[in-house]
Amino acid sequence: MEKTKTTTEQEIDLDPQDWNTIRELGHQIIEDMVDYLKDLDDQPVWKGVPADVKENLKQAMPQGPSDPNAVYQEFKKNIFPYPKGNIHPRFFGWVEGNGTALGALSELLASVMNPNVGIGEHSAMYVERQVLDWCKQLLGYPSDSSGILLSGASMANITALLVARNTASDAIKAGGVDATDGKLTAYCSSETHNCIVKAMEVIGLGHNQLREIPVDERYQMKTDALKEQIIRDQQEGYTPFCIIGNAGTVNTGAIDPMDELLTIAREFDLWFHVDGAFGALAKMVPAYEDKLRSLEQADSIAFDLHKWMYMPYEVGCVLVRNAEIHRAAFTTEADYLTAHDRGLAAGPETFSHFGMELSRGFKALKVWMSLKEHGIEKYRKLITQNITQASYLGSLVKENPNLELMAGIPMNIVCYRFNPGQLDGFNLNRLNKELLMRLHESGVAAPTYTFLEGQYVIRVSITNHRTKQKDLIKLIETSVAIGEDVLGEAFLSEEE
Amino acid sequence: MEKTKTTTEQEIDLDPQDWNTIRELGHQIIEDMVDYLKDLDDQPVWKGVPADVKENLKQAMPQGPSDPNAVYQEFKKNIFPYPKGNIHPRFFGWVEGNGTALGALSELLASVMNPNVGIGEHSAMYVERQVLDWCKQLLGYPSDSSGILLSGASMANITALLVARNTASDAIKAGGVDATDGKLTAYCSSETHNCIVKAMEVIGLGHNQLREIPVDERYQMKTDALKEQIIRDQQEGYTPFCIIGNAGTVNTGAIDPMDELLTIAREFDLWFHVDGAFGALAKMVPAYEDKLRSLEQADSIAFDLHKWMYMPYEVGCVLVRNAEIHRAAFTTEADYLTAHDRGLAAGPETFSHFGMELSRGFKALKVWMSLKEHGIEKYRKLITQNITQASYLGSLVKENPNLELMAGIPMNIVCYRFNPGQLDGFNLNRLNKELLMRLHESGVAAPTYTFLEGQYVIRVSITNHRTKQKDLIKLIETSVAIGEDVLGEAFLSEEE
Ligand SMILES: Cc1ncc(COP(=O)(O)O)c(C=O)c1O
Ligand SMILES: Cc1ncc(COP(=O)(O)O)c(C=O)c1O
Repeated sequence: MEKTKTTTEQEIDLDPQDWNTIRELGHQIIEDMVDYLKDLDDQPVWKGVPADVKENLKQAMPQGPSDPNAVYQEFKKNIFPYPKGNIHPRFFGWVEGNGTALGALSELLASVMNPNVGIGEHSAMYVERQVLDWCKQLLGYPSDSSGILLSGASMANITALLVARNTASDAIKAGGVDATDGKLTAYCSSETHNCIVKAMEVIGLGHNQLREIPVDERYQMKTDALKEQIIRDQQEGYTPFCIIGNAGTVNTGAIDPMDELLTIAREFDLWFHVDGAFGALAKMVPAYEDKLRSLEQADSIAFDLHKWMYMPYEVGCVLVRNAEIHRAAFTTEADYLTAHDRGLAAGPETFSHFGMELSRGFKALKVWMSLKEHGIEKYRKLITQNITQASYLGSLVKENPNLELMAGIPMNIVCYRFNPGQLDGFNLNRLNKELLMRLHESGVAAPTYTFLEGQYVIRVSITNHRTKQKDLIKLIETSVAIGEDVLGEAFLSEEE
Repeated sequence: MEKTKTTTEQEIDLDPQDWNTIRELGHQIIEDMVDYLKDLDDQPVWKGVPADVKENLKQAMPQGPSDPNAVYQEFKKNIFPYPKGNIHPRFFGWVEGNGTALGALSELLASVMNPNVGIGEHSAMYVERQVLDWCKQLLGYPSDSSGILLSGASMANITALLVARNTASDAIKAGGVDATDGKLTAYCSSETHNCIVKAMEVIGLGHNQLREIPVDERYQMKTDALKEQIIRDQQEGYTPFCIIGNAGTVNTGAIDPMDELLTIAREFDLWFHVDGAFGALAKMVPAYEDKLRSLEQADSIAFDLHKWMYMPYEVGCVLVRNAEIHRAAFTTEADYLTAHDRGLAAGPETFSHFGMELSRGFKALKVWMSLKEHGIEKYRKLITQNITQASYLGSLVKENPNLELMAGIPMNIVCYRFNPGQLDGFNLNRLNKELLMRLHESGVAAPTYTFLEGQYVIRVSITNHRTKQKDLIKLIETSVAIGEDVLGEAFLSEEE
């Protein structure tokens, strides 16, 4: 072996020269992170990223090493001070979660263990199965259904629609010319999240094959219109295959009439999928149980734990009622993945039979630790609290003569605008957009926006365990103050 | 406001009652994790998950709260002791990475900040852009190309093939009957990873539309056969649209003849995609630069940072040469995602224009911190070291009369078997499978397996920054000792 020995002289690795250095850095990080989380409320929700920081994030590739402490200092200087803000009590933008202290520590643990949770006999595989069982229980879904954790509801929806697609055609997984080419149609409301449009494009059916059914004044799908469209499509030679119901739309939190959608799906023998990205979890709240009971019968459900379960990114979940069909959609055999009877290559069925990914991180650990830490009752209370807060916010809006409530509040989303009365639609839109940008710049609160019937609205989505009543009061007070400022300014004289 | 005030009495959140409790737990975790990583070498690579631990991971949903310390103790008892092993110096299974101490701390930081890196003006968006620029530089890819970080090479390959699919048909994103229905064909070698098969199924083309071209004795695609197949398909009315080249096959690490694939792709006007899950990164090693130079011309490249850049899970990357085409494949507009001029909703282009996901975690931070910590030169040296180790391991196999080298060693993968000479193929397969399972059970080393021309082989894949020469010697010594044990046992008399 003399010959080859020389080649490995000066063997290197990426472990620290001195473990105490990294130990001390770790302790410093713990101190800094806890201090930060503890005093979140005193921080601005958001502040702009300065130009020199952006410049600093355009460096040449690092060639040589840096001291880990120096790297951390650079992080503290250029990255840490300019967060998105979604962990702050007064963040109400898009639909985002917050995370928790133990959730973050779980990610550290997951990353030290660093298992690839695709295949094999090791604890992480069992933790994920445990968590999936809990997810089923959360929604009252059958225990023999299948599921997988993934990066979010977009992937969960795409995964579910892919399974649905395959049930509509035996041949589609194999490919080639198929009787269903260009014929498969899916149905959802016009308020559906655009990840469903994307799903249709990804799985090869195309967005025109997604029929967006109109909604009523509560932003719920009109089931008459749905039925008519299905029948019309059948008559025109299309093959309807799937209805997608919203358990909480992104714009207003509307819940489609789930029972009716389920009935129609069964009548026409269609797959019934529910996008419950955040809203599915409202099923835990007694007042929503009835409205969402049909989820238990759905063929598949997509929802997120990084939204209304307040877990750190990323973790979403898809559940599929019929495990066989789910498995059939994703299983492909490979010599290098053959299961063994014993050893590392034994273990539970590979998760790659249930989704697009092979390598997968240990997302399940933060869910396991968080559910253990708080217990499901606490989550139920928090979701209820957020719903109550939304209706409280609605009452604040209604009480204020300069504010206008722009939609009902079916769940946790409130849409309002500043409307002092004398402006036309064009200028109201401009004013409210300016108001929102200044609200962000003020650092006081961060809702986002949407358009409802062409009207720009400030949209407050509350999936935030840190929000308190006082935060909503502050939001409203600041909105009104900024609205009045903007109103007094010259730019509003512009015309359409 | 009297009426609504009562509803939010006893407001709750998920923050710790006493921040010092979580602070102390954090410090304990740092101590435990550093101690663990420091002494990895003394641990078994793998041990089985005991039945009572599996039982314990089938608990009912936790209803009430638990002390975070108790949750951590349960983690330490039931989860932590049964890892997959892929962070250990003698893990050589599938193609997996290890992670690092600072990588894990980065995940903690990312999770405390917890930004949703989908949209908005905040530092994480700029960090990811920085990291993507570095990824391009790593591979010599054009700076005006586009890219995105994602969960791994499976998603990267699917994303790339979806973009390729759309270039082949203007109509496919919209859907409906299309001239290309059932006609689009893609080309790869028979040694290609099964995620490419999956990609074809996911994007709606189907696995039969993937032509698996035979390989030569070095497991490289036969380019004559490729050309013939393309021409035959054209004659039969198919529409070839994409060639997939392997920069490192999963079985043996073979590199397809990239220059020729590129030339053929250009000749027939096809998309040229490279699956370089691990092997693309060998481009940094001078001896591989020529073989992989054509990557710079590829239309898209998929590769992982959680494999041969030793980053913690998950982080893969897809790069697409033509940013316009990439963007066109994934962009769908939505009111609630409209970009603003200022405030939180300003910021760089949303990453959702470049992939399937909307919510996304801060995967970029660990890459940024790791590249800063070590510098690219160190990664270059480590990849070189792994390649050198593979060839050293090959020499150990060749020197041993009871071992048989089963394939060439083009990069970092070595396939061998225990072959004492007197057994038929059936019993050699059985013996080597048993050997591998016992090797796992011994806790000494963990390679995995594959089949090469029907022969079960022990497959050692070295993407491990912790592996040293001594680890390979131990692997070989233990393989031989176990092989001899198994050989002496009765079960080998069984017949096919
Ligand atoms: C109703 C709905 N569906 C799907 C999604 C997409 O979820 P994700 O961002 O986790 O991919 C969202 C995100 O806000 C949503 O609100
Ligand atoms: C050549 C090749 N391609 C693709 C993949 C899939 O990568 P990932 O596991 O990150 O999804 C692998 C995984 O080992 C691979 O070796």
